[in-house]
Amino acid sequence: MKALVYVTLKPSVLDPQGKAIHHSVESLGYKNINDIRQGKFFEIALDPSVSEADARDAVERIAKDVLANPVIEDYRVEISQ
Amino acid sequence: MKALVYVTLKPSVLDPQGKAIHHSVESLGYKNINDIRQGKFFEIALDPSVSEADARDAVERIAKDVLANPVIEDYRVEISQ
Repeated sequence: MKALVYVTLKPSVLDPQGKAIHHSVESLGYKNINDIRQGKFFEIALDPSVSEADARDAVERIAKDVLANPVIEDYRVEISQ
Repeated sequence: MKALVYVTLKPSVLDPQGKAIHHSVESLGYKNINDIRQGKFFEIALDPSVSEADARDAVERIAKDVLANPVIEDYRVEISQ
C-alpha cells in the first residue's frame, strides 16, 4: 500500500522560494504566469498487511508530527493501493 | 487556470533525505513503513486567458528547463481549471 502526503505553505505565509522561481521563469521569457508556490510531497510505502484505515491513521499522525509544520503548513494525505 | 508540477527523484537515484525521514519515523515508533521518498511540487497560477493546450505546453517546458533536473528527476504535469 502507498500513501502520498502533500505539504504546502498556508496561503497566508510568504513563499520566497516560489517568488524566486517565478522571477527566474519570467526572466526566461515565459509570460502569463501569475504566481508559483512550492510545496513538497512524500511517497510512503507501507507494509501490505496494514489495513487502509490503519494506514491513513498512521500516515496522518506522521504527516502532522514529522513531515509538516502545522503552524505554517497545510498537509493532505492520499492512500492508494 | 492552475498547473501542478510534481518532481520526483528517478527510482534508481538514492534519496538520502527520504532515508533520514524514514529513520526518524521508525525511531518514533511507527512500524510497517517500508520506504519513504521525498519529492517536490509546484502550484503554478496561469493567466485565465491562456488555453489549456498552451498552458500545458508552457508548463511542460518550464518543468523541464527550470523545475526539474531531467538527469536525476522525473516530472509530471497536471492542468486544472
